[in-house]
Amino acid sequence: MMGNCQACCNRPKNTNIRISLPAICFVWQISMIILFGVFVRYDEESDSHWVEYMHKNNITSHVENDFYYRYPSFQDVHVMIFVGFGFLMTFLKRYSFSGVGFNFLIAAFGIQWALLMQEFANGISSCFIINADFCVAGCLIAFGACLGKVSPVQLMVMTLFGVTLFAVEEYIILNIIHAKDAGGSMTIHTFGGYFGLVISWVLYRPNLHQSKRLQGSHYHSDVFAMIGTLFLWMFWPSFNSAIANHGDGQHRAVINTYLALASSVVTAIAISSLSHRRGKLDMVHVQNATLAGGVAMGTAAEFMIMPYGSLIVGFCCGILSTFGYLVLTPFLEKHMKIQDTCGIHNLHAMPGLLGGVIGAITAATASKSVYGHEGLVNTFNFVDEFANRSVGTQGAHQAAGLCVALIFALGGGALVGGILKLPLWGDPEDCNCFDDEVYWELPEDEESIPAIIEYNNQMDSKRFDM
Amino acid sequence: MMGNCQACCNRPKNTNIRISLPAICFVWQISMIILFGVFVRYDEESDSHWVEYMHKNNITSHVENDFYYRYPSFQDVHVMIFVGFGFLMTFLKRYSFSGVGFNFLIAAFGIQWALLMQEFANGISSCFIINADFCVAGCLIAFGACLGKVSPVQLMVMTLFGVTLFAVEEYIILNIIHAKDAGGSMTIHTFGGYFGLVISWVLYRPNLHQSKRLQGSHYHSDVFAMIGTLFLWMFWPSFNSAIANHGDGQHRAVINTYLALASSVVTAIAISSLSHRRGKLDMVHVQNATLAGGVAMGTAAEFMIMPYGSLIVGFCCGILSTFGYLVLTPFLEKHMKIQDTCGIHNLHAMPGLLGGVIGAITAATASKSVYGHEGLVNTFNFVDEFANRSVGTQGAHQAAGLCVALIFALGGGALVGGILKLPLWGDPEDCNCFDDEVYWELPEDEESIPAIIEYNNQMDSKRFDM
Amino acid sequence: MMGNCQACCNRPKNTNIRISLPAICFVWQISMIILFGVFVRYDEESDSHWVEYMHKNNITSHVENDFYYRYPSFQDVHVMIFVGFGFLMTFLKRYSFSGVGFNFLIAAFGIQWALLMQEFANGISSCFIINADFCVAGCLIAFGACLGKVSPVQLMVMTLFGVTLFAVEEYIILNIIHAKDAGGSMTIHTFGGYFGLVISWVLYRPNLHQSKRLQGSHYHSDVFAMIGTLFLWMFWPSFNSAIANHGDGQHRAVINTYLALASSVVTAIAISSLSHRRGKLDMVHVQNATLAGGVAMGTAAEFMIMPYGSLIVGFCCGILSTFGYLVLTPFLEKHMKIQDTCGIHNLHAMPGLLGGVIGAITAATASKSVYGHEGLVNTFNFVDEFANRSVGTQGAHQAAGLCVALIFALGGGALVGGILKLPLWGDPEDCNCFDDEVYWELPEDEESIPAIIEYNNQMDSKRFDM
Repeated sequence: MMGNCQACCNRPKNTNIRISLPAICFVWQISMIILFGVFVRYDEESDSHWVEYMHKNNITSHVENDFYYRYPSFQDVHVMIFVGFGFLMTFLKRYSFSGVGFNFLIAAFGIQWALLMQEFANGISSCFIINADFCVAGCLIAFGACLGKVSPVQLMVMTLFGVTLFAVEEYIILNIIHAKDAGGSMTIHTFGGYFGLVISWVLYRPNLHQSKRLQGSHYHSDVFAMIGTLFLWMFWPSFNSAIANHGDGQHRAVINTYLALASSVVTAIAISSLSHRRGKLDMVHVQNATLAGGVAMGTAAEFMIMPYGSLIVGFCCGILSTFGYLVLTPFLEKHMKIQDTCGIHNLHAMPGLLGGVIGAITAATASKSVYGHEGLVNTFNFVDEFANRSVGTQGAHQAAGLCVALIFALGGGALVGGILKLPLWGDPEDCNCFDDEVYWELPEDEESIPAIIEYNNQMDSKRFDM
Repeated sequence: MMGNCQACCNRPKNTNIRISLPAICFVWQISMIILFGVFVRYDEESDSHWVEYMHKNNITSHVENDFYYRYPSFQDVHVMIFVGFGFLMTFLKRYSFSGVGFNFLIAAFGIQWALLMQEFANGISSCFIINADFCVAGCLIAFGACLGKVSPVQLMVMTLFGVTLFAVEEYIILNIIHAKDAGGSMTIHTFGGYFGLVISWVLYRPNLHQSKRLQGSHYHSDVFAMIGTLFLWMFWPSFNSAIANHGDGQHRAVINTYLALASSVVTAIAISSLSHRRGKLDMVHVQNATLAGGVAMGTAAEFMIMPYGSLIVGFCCGILSTFGYLVLTPFLEKHMKIQDTCGIHNLHAMPGLLGGVIGAITAATASKSVYGHEGLVNTFNFVDEFANRSVGTQGAHQAAGLCVALIFALGGGALVGGILKLPLWGDPEDCNCFDDEVYWELPEDEESIPAIIEYNNQMDSKRFDM
Repeated sequence: MMGNCQACCNRPKNTNIRISLPAICFVWQISMIILFGVFVRYDEESDSHWVEYMHKNNITSHVENDFYYRYPSFQDVHVMIFVGFGFLMTFLKRYSFSGVGFNFLIAAFGIQWALLMQEFANGISSCFIINADFCVAGCLIAFGACLGKVSPVQLMVMTLFGVTLFAVEEYIILNIIHAKDAGGSMTIHTFGGYFGLVISWVLYRPNLHQSKRLQGSHYHSDVFAMIGTLFLWMFWPSFNSAIANHGDGQHRAVINTYLALASSVVTAIAISSLSHRRGKLDMVHVQNATLAGGVAMGTAAEFMIMPYGSLIVGFCCGILSTFGYLVLTPFLEKHMKIQDTCGIHNLHAMPGLLGGVIGAITAATASKSVYGHEGLVNTFNFVDEFANRSVGTQGAHQAAGLCVALIFALGGGALVGGILKLPLWGDPEDCNCFDDEVYWELPEDEESIPAIIEYNNQMDSKRFDM
């Protein structure tokens, strides 16, 4: 009964993806193999000529292989992408399979495409696989806005375009504008957040209220989502430090992010309690707004923002993000036609934007007295053609980078949203959203509880017939 | 119906924390920002002057930044604090939100206060953030004894005092007495365990049986708790080695803890089976007693206790801890008025005490023939004013450290328990404990199952009326 | 009512393990302590003489202690063994306690025995504890085939023999034949897979259909299983690289495994969708077949198989493994009398076999032009008595290694199966398999849902009586 919608639709959509999903998977996976065959090799640190490279460059220990600097952080990031994002999206009562499963599919596809996109010429190395995970994070954020309303085929298409846009945007921001963005406040969160919101706006479903019954959580699905939240929260210091400079860069990025996150937990919970008549907490806020501090430290994590500065960032973001869930998400849905299932506006878009601004200000106010001469050069990488850049100029370039991220997000979102609106992709009916039943074989006994309720209802009505 | 108690209380307590929780969160978070602003800076390894520091000290590689020695261990400890402790406390059928959520709140607040407490003068570094996590562990242990019976406001107050007491106690034990306690058998587990038990004793609830219906677990809540158990169990070697000496110190601490833990799993399960009429296992023992070996290795992990010594420690602790759950917890509740929800007496207090004793004995029996001269000096840090300390003296000082931990726990617990007994903090009624409904907005459909049961019961009774 | 089988059995089996399980645990744990006391010491890197060892060998930094090269990988492997394998086996609706709990028990016992088996003479070190985890993985794989049909006592016996066989087999393959197998396609997966399948064949239960009602999953148990899947998937690069060569060896093993895994997710999901009438995905495939790429890269991960080569391996394995679940598992059950609960044939045995073959081919086609001279020597460890071995010979030896793994698996499985068939071990009745109730005290309220269903059924029938 559930899963077909003769009740409310005259001509129900075709959600059969038996041809389209396998076709797209095979075509793309085979393309990946061919493109990797042509373009991708190991770099010097993962190639078996490494020992010769060591001799040539007077490297005396294997520990200088970047692998040992980056791999622990990489694994933390990897957990964030697959368990963190995946389980964060299991909170809906009947959409946990899709939340964690589609996240798995598009991330696994996306990282391959991301590896190709970012680096055609050089070989792959631990730095590149971290960056591939970062790259895919933008698309997973966008997935959050569309959760429950799109088909896996649409998600694959969105990922293909999203990763491509990300790679270009990141190249412009980091290499051409030479802005710093180690944790991706701009490149990942601002881009991913607004990209997803625009897609969600284009795909607006006026009758989504027909799926209202499935839009809430279940007691245990909320606990599953906390697995996602906590792994994101714990490993965010690794996310923001994974590709930071060796030594003090990585070290400082960890400390700043750690402090900002701790601070945003406290204020998010405070606002959550304050907003309820009897001071009760809301799981949505605990699951999401507690993470906002990490997002907002993405750009400035490497900088000398000072421990108390990090606490202030977290303080503001915890408040801002919780207010977002309380006020902005309903507002956006009602007045702006943006249906944002996971509230990515509050968790990624706004804090990301804020993070970009904080980064610009922190860069513009950097000084040799605080950083030391070498410290300043290393932190902002003022070398080669950027050797004479002043911190003021750097601040302006940071701001420019933020604008580029926004432009790519809005333009790219409109484009990709348009493509996803085509009636080809097997997306569900308005009355059939947030339902695993459309794309998954569900365990039989799962129906037992609704079945009992229905049975009882029937009994009830029968009783009156007697 | 649930959540108010007109049935059994004439003047129900006010559990509305809408003012108190946000107030305490904001006041403390703002204080943190101010205090961090005044007192906390980056240390030389996380400051941007690091490169200059390297030159000055002839450090040739970034890999010598302590970050690379400690960060993987730190992340493991971090997972233990937030996922390990958090999920271990989700085992109650209707208290999973509070278990994982309040743990998140107090740990995030506590680590900030801990950073301040432990180090006003020096800057923060990876070692300090590990220690902040350790610091908070003591309070999370105490939370385990009070689980389900206190409000989040009480937990915040308990954490503030607990962290303060911990910092003073740890300073006395490690710096003044110069006892070794890398994994905190004394400073963390003995202190946290007895601290929580005394608080629980002060807050004794004579009518707690009125909440009996909610004091058990649910099939899936027990599986959630296993997530906590396993992450604690797996990462305990990192916990005990995180701040051990570089090189063999960390290495040996890992091996000893690994062996003790493996051994305590086997004996805990043996006793669990032996204690049931038909040999059936009890999830409570599997979730908790399996971890006792790690607690008891906290002090001696760094020492040359030998692989078989570690196995013996785990062997004894697995038995002891399971007996605790079978015999001592009911005894304490019935005869000592200590209601210990999670059984922290069996998992932390007793094994911690034992760990302190084992540490004292192992230290007192250390010899140059086993350790080597340099090894002995390094392991016990016999330098500067302690250069002439004998191993016998060290053993006595270890024992003295254990006494200090106990004194702080008992005295501090009585003090904090007294404060928490004030009728200000919004704690629940005796008939309303172990219930998320008091402090959380719960998903609507959660009530469906009880509703069905109730519905059926009504039908049943109606039937007889017909 | 459930848990005894008077309905279908005349003389029900005795599943009381109150004597046998504790007895076996105590006897073995005490034996471990004695054997460790006699045979096991710390090695030079974990002994307190390490500083003297550094001086003697001109080691200038603690970071050269192998601990820092291996420990992050070790912890990832540790998570795979306890959370990965453990939670992967929680998918059954009423066997989650046993899945994760028995996995915990046998792994904790097995790692001790494995440490002893592999290294009587040398001391233990981080390399050995990684290897102990590897060792136990073979037995956990075999557990997958028997899941739900054996008692914990049988599992302990199986682990004792399994680890012993593994240690001998691994010694022959790695040290005598000098085959390379860093990630254990042959030694772990082929051996563990066929070992378990043969045991399952020997223990064939003709009336297993009597437990059909419990052989499916539950919505939330499937989500729990995804925790296992994802931690296995994410950390598989660490598994395959944990004991690879320092430097480029570990680095390359990570990249190759990462790519193979990504590729097998995409093809596994494609085939899963293709095989369903309406293109719906099956959780069984997502939970298992997505991992096949990691298994098949176990041998060749260190080799210069090239990024596109890794993608091809994953591509094929994702397809092969999903087909296995669709076609081979039912076939094996129907025609070969092999009841393979978790489908280890598709996830471990077949891809492991394939991995061995890929390893042999890749080794045989290695060349100095690709590897460089030093690279070739390092990768295949062509030193000492193997200094003159050609790559062709190495390929042949790889193939020989695979045969040894198979022989040990088949012979060992038959032997151990025979032992487990003895009517001593308290295994459940055919009508009582896949049921936690046999070996665990379950939470009381768990029965509420079946109770309601039953109640309704009774009502239903009564109704007709009226």
